[in-house]
Amino acid sequence: MGPYTHDETADPELAHHPEVVLLPENTQQVAEIVKLANHHKLPIVPRGAGTGLSGGIVPKFGGIVISLERFDKIIEIDSENMFMTVEAGVITERVQEAANRAGFLYAGDPCSGHSSTIGGNVATNAGGNKVLKYGSTRRQVYGLEVVTAEGDIVFLGGKCMKDSTGYSLLNLIIGSEGTLGIITKVILKLQPLPSHRVDLLAIFPDRSSAMQAVPLILQKGIIPAALEFMDNRAVQCCEEYIGEKLPYRKDAYYLIVTLEGDDEGFLEGQMALIDEVCRDSGVIEILAADPRRIWRARRVFAEASRARSPVYSGEDLVVPLSALGVIIKFIVDRGEEYGVTIHCAGHAGDGNVHAHILKDSINDDNWRQILLALHDQIYKKVYSLGGKLSGEHGIGYKRVKLLEEFCHPVELKMMKAIKQCLDPNLILNPGKVLQF
Amino acid sequence: MGPYTHDETADPELAHHPEVVLLPENTQQVAEIVKLANHHKLPIVPRGAGTGLSGGIVPKFGGIVISLERFDKIIEIDSENMFMTVEAGVITERVQEAANRAGFLYAGDPCSGHSSTIGGNVATNAGGNKVLKYGSTRRQVYGLEVVTAEGDIVFLGGKCMKDSTGYSLLNLIIGSEGTLGIITKVILKLQPLPSHRVDLLAIFPDRSSAMQAVPLILQKGIIPAALEFMDNRAVQCCEEYIGEKLPYRKDAYYLIVTLEGDDEGFLEGQMALIDEVCRDSGVIEILAADPRRIWRARRVFAEASRARSPVYSGEDLVVPLSALGVIIKFIVDRGEEYGVTIHCAGHAGDGNVHAHILKDSINDDNWRQILLALHDQIYKKVYSLGGKLSGEHGIGYKRVKLLEEFCHPVELKMMKAIKQCLDPNLILNPGKVLQF
Repeated sequence: MGPYTHDETADPELAHHPEVVLLPENTQQVAEIVKLANHHKLPIVPRGAGTGLSGGIVPKFGGIVISLERFDKIIEIDSENMFMTVEAGVITERVQEAANRAGFLYAGDPCSGHSSTIGGNVATNAGGNKVLKYGSTRRQVYGLEVVTAEGDIVFLGGKCMKDSTGYSLLNLIIGSEGTLGIITKVILKLQPLPSHRVDLLAIFPDRSSAMQAVPLILQKGIIPAALEFMDNRAVQCCEEYIGEKLPYRKDAYYLIVTLEGDDEGFLEGQMALIDEVCRDSGVIEILAADPRRIWRARRVFAEASRARSPVYSGEDLVVPLSALGVIIKFIVDRGEEYGVTIHCAGHAGDGNVHAHILKDSINDDNWRQILLALHDQIYKKVYSLGGKLSGEHGIGYKRVKLLEEFCHPVELKMMKAIKQCLDPNLILNPGKVLQF
Repeated sequence: MGPYTHDETADPELAHHPEVVLLPENTQQVAEIVKLANHHKLPIVPRGAGTGLSGGIVPKFGGIVISLERFDKIIEIDSENMFMTVEAGVITERVQEAANRAGFLYAGDPCSGHSSTIGGNVATNAGGNKVLKYGSTRRQVYGLEVVTAEGDIVFLGGKCMKDSTGYSLLNLIIGSEGTLGIITKVILKLQPLPSHRVDLLAIFPDRSSAMQAVPLILQKGIIPAALEFMDNRAVQCCEEYIGEKLPYRKDAYYLIVTLEGDDEGFLEGQMALIDEVCRDSGVIEILAADPRRIWRARRVFAEASRARSPVYSGEDLVVPLSALGVIIKFIVDRGEEYGVTIHCAGHAGDGNVHAHILKDSINDDNWRQILLALHDQIYKKVYSLGGKLSGEHGIGYKRVKLLEEFCHPVELKMMKAIKQCLDPNLILNPGKVLQF
């Protein structure tokens, strides 16, 4: 049962053995398991591929892990309505590839897409590299089959383009991290497949010039598919991990911009505008990037940090765009103050920062203390800037105490009331998101 | 208090006097009113401009109407982050105009925009004429100030581009029609203002050829801002109402297509593709439409039907796109079977049909019986096609019994559980959406 004790957070405090792992093959079996568990008040932890970064699938109180790995069927591609129906355990990349083969785009694109499941994407409202243009996973999801905490099967939403028929339970389940229901099937929106794509790598001499360019690009009315940031430490760490030389890596701060569209001439015009904005902000060089290499470097960020320091705290904070430069500077300064290395990268266009605080050789007691102090300072600052704890990874187990501290008490009370009314015995993924 | 007894549904059965109408000036006053009402278990009906079409603001059980009409301030246009913050009582058109003046687009565009309030748009998850490209009101809303049923004030969401920080209460409140909280402030996303716009009017000889063209246009990878349908009866009725001659009105079925973008050449290419698709489907003529005239005709559809028959039942059903032709034919055939006139228009690209069933001179008893029979047949068909009761008008009071009948019992049970946990005394807009 070892593999089912943890997700990708390597912190040993975020691992726990389940009492049993079940691999049901269909929704009816899931419903029967949940009915039994609810009757006997046993914890149930639904699990996709275990690629989460918040301890969301750790069976913290033992009980039953329900792995959705056998829910791996692509049920239908409906070209006429431009929807795809899949079981929850299908790997994200398989969804993307199947959509492409049918002439469509599936716009969800988390960095973990090669191994994460679509059910996990929905449960955390995963973001990724195309949120700026297409929105988070929430915006791709139009229908969900869900097993409730009482073992009932319900289908929410469907293939309608709009819906004002009662409360949006669909949107309540999306992002609820397996605490309000178990997702077994998903209807995903497909987009027209853009015929052209351009990847640019803009190399800046320092953080502030790179950060300055981000809102300016968006204010030009350009909506890139991706607008990513990597600070110099992230660039160096990722270069070492993939073993391929990256441009200017010694002193580079990267912005990676992807444009997608159907009109090559128009994309070229947008590239020229981006070029102009970046030059005004003091860019060193703008390269037409090799998308394979540059995106590989960006995507391995989590693995690269882990390779350097097996234990690290990966933050997933999100702030309004105008506060992006302020919060990154604040985090890096605090790292220097406390003598810890912090790598920053993230979805700059979304205001979503992944700050990796590395434990390196710091001893366990000091690490805990430093992390507590850093989190306290960082999130006080984040919330003062109108930001939030998580942009795309979710609260999981790792951020439960932080949510308790930083979420408005009325909002927290409403969340807890909803959890208690939909899962009266608190059996679904206990200890995640909310604490009771 | 007369004006506060009803919304735009002229059916006298959907009108009722409140015991008092209060016009608070700020959120604190709303909170104090709700605290008192909750203590004394008095019904509270929050109200915007009363332009709804489902009886959502009718004080069915008397009590207190809280009109938000004094909440009329545009608080901020944040150009850097591309957000606008407004009080709930601001008229939609004022939001659109203020966004335009600042160089942005506010993409919400209900037909009632000249008089509806933004708070009402959020409460019903209003749709309108640009859903195809920009999504319903839900997608424009990033933050809400809400007064809960217990009189607490809470701010949900904010100016972050993404958020996975606990349950999406924001999305739960959107579309809950004043039954889970009273919306007092709204943060709306602004879009880059497209520099070019084209309006086409495609005139078809019959319904089936017009319907055939709809999915074909979208399958070409074109995403129009609007793709609207008016059947021949709707065209004639609207022409009479506005008193301006419309092209081919004697035998015309209209598709109105609006394209928006920054690249004129690209829009021209898309127009050529649409032209091709429409010709393949048997179009009579495609005109570069005078947007003022043709959109005026489309927008007055509700008023035009009401002018002909003060009492009518306006349906707001939504189906998957591929079922659009089937359901419209089914509805028109049922009208003929029962001897009632039905006008159909709607947001074809969204699969959202507004079928106006006219009472005309039918006597009251017959009308009730016919309507019951028609609703039963129509919605059985809608649900068999994967459709829903409401695409954008909401359940209100008018569709409570239909929701009870057609919503999946588990989904209904979950909705009721949420209502009861967030509004234990059932004081907020009682008798709307759900019945207890």
